[in-house]
Amino acid sequence: MLAANYRGDRTITVDEREPDGLRPGEVRIGVAFVGICGTDLHVFHGDMDTRVTRPATIGHEMSGTILEVAPDVDGWSIGDAVTVMPLAWDGTCPACLAGNEHICQNLDFIGIDSPGALQEQWNVPASTLVRLPAELSLRDAALVEPVAVAVHDVRRSELGPGDKAVVIGAGPIGVLIATVAAAFGADVVISELDPNRRAAAAEMGLQTLDPSSVDQVAWVERWTGGAGADVVFEVSGSAAAVLSATSLAKVRGTLVVVAIHSQPRPIDLHRVFWRELRILGARVYQRRDFERAVELVAQGAIPADKLITRVVPLTGVASAFEALEAGQAMKLLVEVPQ
Amino acid sequence: MLAANYRGDRTITVDEREPDGLRPGEVRIGVAFVGICGTDLHVFHGDMDTRVTRPATIGHEMSGTILEVAPDVDGWSIGDAVTVMPLAWDGTCPACLAGNEHICQNLDFIGIDSPGALQEQWNVPASTLVRLPAELSLRDAALVEPVAVAVHDVRRSELGPGDKAVVIGAGPIGVLIATVAAAFGADVVISELDPNRRAAAAEMGLQTLDPSSVDQVAWVERWTGGAGADVVFEVSGSAAAVLSATSLAKVRGTLVVVAIHSQPRPIDLHRVFWRELRILGARVYQRRDFERAVELVAQGAIPADKLITRVVPLTGVASAFEALEAGQAMKLLVEVPQ
Repeated sequence: MLAANYRGDRTITVDEREPDGLRPGEVRIGVAFVGICGTDLHVFHGDMDTRVTRPATIGHEMSGTILEVAPDVDGWSIGDAVTVMPLAWDGTCPACLAGNEHICQNLDFIGIDSPGALQEQWNVPASTLVRLPAELSLRDAALVEPVAVAVHDVRRSELGPGDKAVVIGAGPIGVLIATVAAAFGADVVISELDPNRRAAAAEMGLQTLDPSSVDQVAWVERWTGGAGADVVFEVSGSAAAVLSATSLAKVRGTLVVVAIHSQPRPIDLHRVFWRELRILGARVYQRRDFERAVELVAQGAIPADKLITRVVPLTGVASAFEALEAGQAMKLLVEVPQ
Repeated sequence: MLAANYRGDRTITVDEREPDGLRPGEVRIGVAFVGICGTDLHVFHGDMDTRVTRPATIGHEMSGTILEVAPDVDGWSIGDAVTVMPLAWDGTCPACLAGNEHICQNLDFIGIDSPGALQEQWNVPASTLVRLPAELSLRDAALVEPVAVAVHDVRRSELGPGDKAVVIGAGPIGVLIATVAAAFGADVVISELDPNRRAAAAEMGLQTLDPSSVDQVAWVERWTGGAGADVVFEVSGSAAAVLSATSLAKVRGTLVVVAIHSQPRPIDLHRVFWRELRILGARVYQRRDFERAVELVAQGAIPADKLITRVVPLTGVASAFEALEAGQAMKLLVEVPQ
């Protein structure tokens, strides 16, 4: 079978190799589609070389059908359409014991810390499987994982129907958060400097804001009748955005930190104190986020056609990373031969 | 009667003047004791001159007895022992309408934005009164306001019995937060660089930590069985403390920002994201915090004798500010002639 291998130094090769043997508790998936995300791009850039054992078959946004089921696995059959929640926790650390398995202190993120989906056959623990309904195409189902991230972020914020949310950053996750927040009944505006991303978000029906031409604080103040936003999602990763984000939130409002900030960022703690703000970190997802994400994608609540800019074959995976790097794509899928 | 007046430029005078007339809805209090706090010191230093209209009678930590009750006021009688929750909200702003009157967007903090308690007779709206039980001395009752701050901070953190809390900074509010957290059933350690403050906290029965000689992260890790603290209270105001605070909290742990940081502070947002931390601003108090604070002081749960370093007469108020400034006192009370 074919498998993509990250070999360090911005190099990914696609190589022929024998499929892995199936271990107890596992299923073998015939991979159909794999989405490439910002984290995969970080791996490609070498930013995560201390964490990723090379050669590495990465990829964790995927869909496929079951090819084989280990004898000790119940509830799954050959031919079932599935996606994978790519987390494996130890079940024994303090975080797991407190019920936060999804951010286990020794989390194995499958597709980064252990082999991922960019191969024809992928063996995963049956416990990671999430069932896909018949009406959901395998292509669109490759969006379930990033949608689950967005569902987790929105659920964590406790955003409610009629609430007003500002999403800072209109990359793929920002757009998905805005879409999910709207699907949950919130009024949403997405703030983005880049005109192309702003146009893409607008085409998806999202209200957009250009913070370089509009006084964002005054705009949000007017929009919210002088209150400020219920929730602000920081998805840009920019220091300037973090510093201004606290000015957009209402008294007792919430700022959700979604983006990865590799450097400590100055935060206006006086504003945090003065308005009794709440800043929440939000990372990955829990099973219910995945299940909700499957429903949202299946219902057509996610603009899949507009999000999926291009589908490339597994043999063209290197060019896919280059296109993503060049900012030529919102969401790029790799199609794996069945 | 005598009243203290802040006149700008580190000058406070004590002057004779006519008592104010009583307006509808007000009571006249014969002030007994007034505590001087860090905010009063900021006023004395001129840091709040844009906010404080001079000459200003400041002071908001107090106790006294009612001398006169306006005809339209029910439920209060001459001779009642009281303290004051020094907040007046507009009742119409979005924060008030959402039930957060205590941090009204147009809050009048009585004793800063309007006249305070450093005078023999102080007229306040009856709605601000908090009843003191007979067993509580007026001297100790002057501690109720800062204890209410601590109760608010601890309640906002959702700290529970058996939880582990780190308090960074052993000034008066830090010591009170640690004491209240312990009274709520938590295990507490207070981290403080200054050996005198550390010794004072230890004398109050608090477990202390010197972050300059102990690896704080490793210490908390051991103390919490590898989990990290449930709650970290940032009461030091130091940039270094803020930057390290996120390393002390458990997965989904809470950092409460109590100190006033006049500059934006670098925060390790990667840690906030990675552990799904929660950062909460906490400001002033709500009525239930005051009521709980009265109970705690009345029960002797607060080490009043150790906290009250000195009592000075109203005529010596200027020297009180200077002593506090020189770090010669934990809590300093001004006694007002009855």
